[in-house]
Amino acid sequence: VHVGDGTLPLAALDLVERGIRKVALVTHPALWTRYGAALARALTAWGVEAHPIPIGPGERSKSLRVVARIYDALVDAKIDRGGAVLALGGGVVGDAAGFAAATYLRGVGLVHLPTTLLAQVDASIGGKTAVNLAAKNLVGVFWQPLAVHADVRTLRSLPARELRCGLAEAIKHAAIADAGLFDWTEARLSDLVRRDAATLVELVARNAEIKAGVVAADERELTGAREVLNFGHTVGHAVEAVRGYRGITHGEAVSVGMSVEAEIGVRLGIASAADAARLRRALSAAGLPTRMPSGSVGPVLERMSLDKKVRAGAWRLSLMGSLGTARVGVVVEPALVREVIIAMTEPTP
Amino acid sequence: VHVGDGTLPLAALDLVERGIRKVALVTHPALWTRYGAALARALTAWGVEAHPIPIGPGERSKSLRVVARIYDALVDAKIDRGGAVLALGGGVVGDAAGFAAATYLRGVGLVHLPTTLLAQVDASIGGKTAVNLAAKNLVGVFWQPLAVHADVRTLRSLPARELRCGLAEAIKHAAIADAGLFDWTEARLSDLVRRDAATLVELVARNAEIKAGVVAADERELTGAREVLNFGHTVGHAVEAVRGYRGITHGEAVSVGMSVEAEIGVRLGIASAADAARLRRALSAAGLPTRMPSGSVGPVLERMSLDKKVRAGAWRLSLMGSLGTARVGVVVEPALVREVIIAMTEPTP
Repeated sequence: VHVGDGTLPLAALDLVERGIRKVALVTHPALWTRYGAALARALTAWGVEAHPIPIGPGERSKSLRVVARIYDALVDAKIDRGGAVLALGGGVVGDAAGFAAATYLRGVGLVHLPTTLLAQVDASIGGKTAVNLAAKNLVGVFWQPLAVHADVRTLRSLPARELRCGLAEAIKHAAIADAGLFDWTEARLSDLVRRDAATLVELVARNAEIKAGVVAADERELTGAREVLNFGHTVGHAVEAVRGYRGITHGEAVSVGMSVEAEIGVRLGIASAADAARLRRALSAAGLPTRMPSGSVGPVLERMSLDKKVRAGAWRLSLMGSLGTARVGVVVEPALVREVIIAMTEPTP
Repeated sequence: VHVGDGTLPLAALDLVERGIRKVALVTHPALWTRYGAALARALTAWGVEAHPIPIGPGERSKSLRVVARIYDALVDAKIDRGGAVLALGGGVVGDAAGFAAATYLRGVGLVHLPTTLLAQVDASIGGKTAVNLAAKNLVGVFWQPLAVHADVRTLRSLPARELRCGLAEAIKHAAIADAGLFDWTEARLSDLVRRDAATLVELVARNAEIKAGVVAADERELTGAREVLNFGHTVGHAVEAVRGYRGITHGEAVSVGMSVEAEIGVRLGIASAADAARLRRALSAAGLPTRMPSGSVGPVLERMSLDKKVRAGAWRLSLMGSLGTARVGVVVEPALVREVIIAMTEPTP
């Protein structure tokens, strides 16, 4: 993982050093104009043949139909196992291009060039690729990238709401794994929101390290070591699913989920009320919601009961312990979840 | 790899021992009637929930469209990561069901139940899965099965031509890796053609061992160790491609390919004329062709020049050395290949 400010063109040099002479650059048209074309020029200057593969922005591109179009373009570009796929974009581009790279010719090289804070601190690290079918991320494989180049300069054009989405996952990493990083992040939220480059570089680098460390212990989600990353996500996934993934971002849903799940931890004596309150204050300061949207209690509880992470019989959650630590597989009574969700729901307008 | 005669229902016991309680059984309708229904009853008797997923027979089922239908059926059956996909059939079922298993929920368990000799001695071993797109096997992943259960009783209903197809790969394994097995196979070709069960069990077991040994040294085709398996396949693939994969089976094309490539080895002093002749006699005795179809010299040479195994500039082949040994990466002049192909072409009718 390489993190820098204005360092995207250096990805070309990295490819040259890896002996890669031909790449496909999967991105959407707006990103091509903003960053892709310049990167392609840098690649050409270094003697790497670059073939742009445009895909539409948004979740709809995580489909087998778009992946099939990427395959066709890879054939047209004559990419072989010595070539690589570059995924320039956010989570959607990384997931779809990553799945195509993992399955084309039984796997070609993949380089993530994340352009959202969420992808830089989280999605581009860990080797997950996915497309949606009947359910979100139903199809995918684990496929580790050759490299990740995160250039925080690409975050300048990111909408504020998407920046906050990345801050939610960054706050999560700190909350479950690194109390020192939590202090550091909490003290720099205003620098981060105004996109100070040096602060963003440090944030991305420290978060990528945490995520990579967790993933390295359990690359294929077999041992359960990755479960610590689920803090906030059981409730969060239910919240976004109930909303049909519209009107609420993943980061906002996870922010609500962390607030609720931290409070569940308080009720169980796992976390202190002071730590839970501090977490909520940090999320609020980052411009993220901390209360359940009104009218969603019933549907969210029903949805949670279908979650694969909520095993048959007992509900098991990954919670924050004391700030900077995690507790996985915590058995929680559905009644307690209901009680906390109701207590944390916004008053009906 | 478990090999036996009438042992297919024992696969159910193996699943129980692995703690698997729910499976999807991918197969085509004729195989379901012949073997699948009985296996499903055995599974039910052992407490394993079995959901049949029918797919059409033939190469056309190796498509993203069929794989998408398998995904939908896996969702309907509520198969999760604790479940497994059973692939009951030949190479097509193994490839399509294997790809679906490898990519559904980022990978669920896969058990191969090969019902053709080709799949039993070759295709079910090695972890390759694939679907066709613009080119054959363009898309796929490596995904090792939990187990392979080869029941030679399922070969009773196999058309004679498909049985010979498997014999071609068995003769290849012996020719490149085990001179003793070549002696053994050569002496038992008539027993094999009349499908003597005990002889088939030994043939499948010894071949699976050879293939598994080669694959274990290079699971993802990174080191080149798997290249020994390509003997006969560079010319063979070109022959089937030129024919549009019609009118000639894979085994027949490989038989022609081995005959031609063995002769190339003779011309290069790598193999003896006696060994090449003995190989051709064994192939003929198994009912397989050993001469190039007439009128295909030009197209086959053109097709070979596009093969990924024929690298830019030099043509490199995996050849048989002395019987029971292989030589990989042998540089061959295109002119020599042309000369041998012409010499070994059937006279125009």
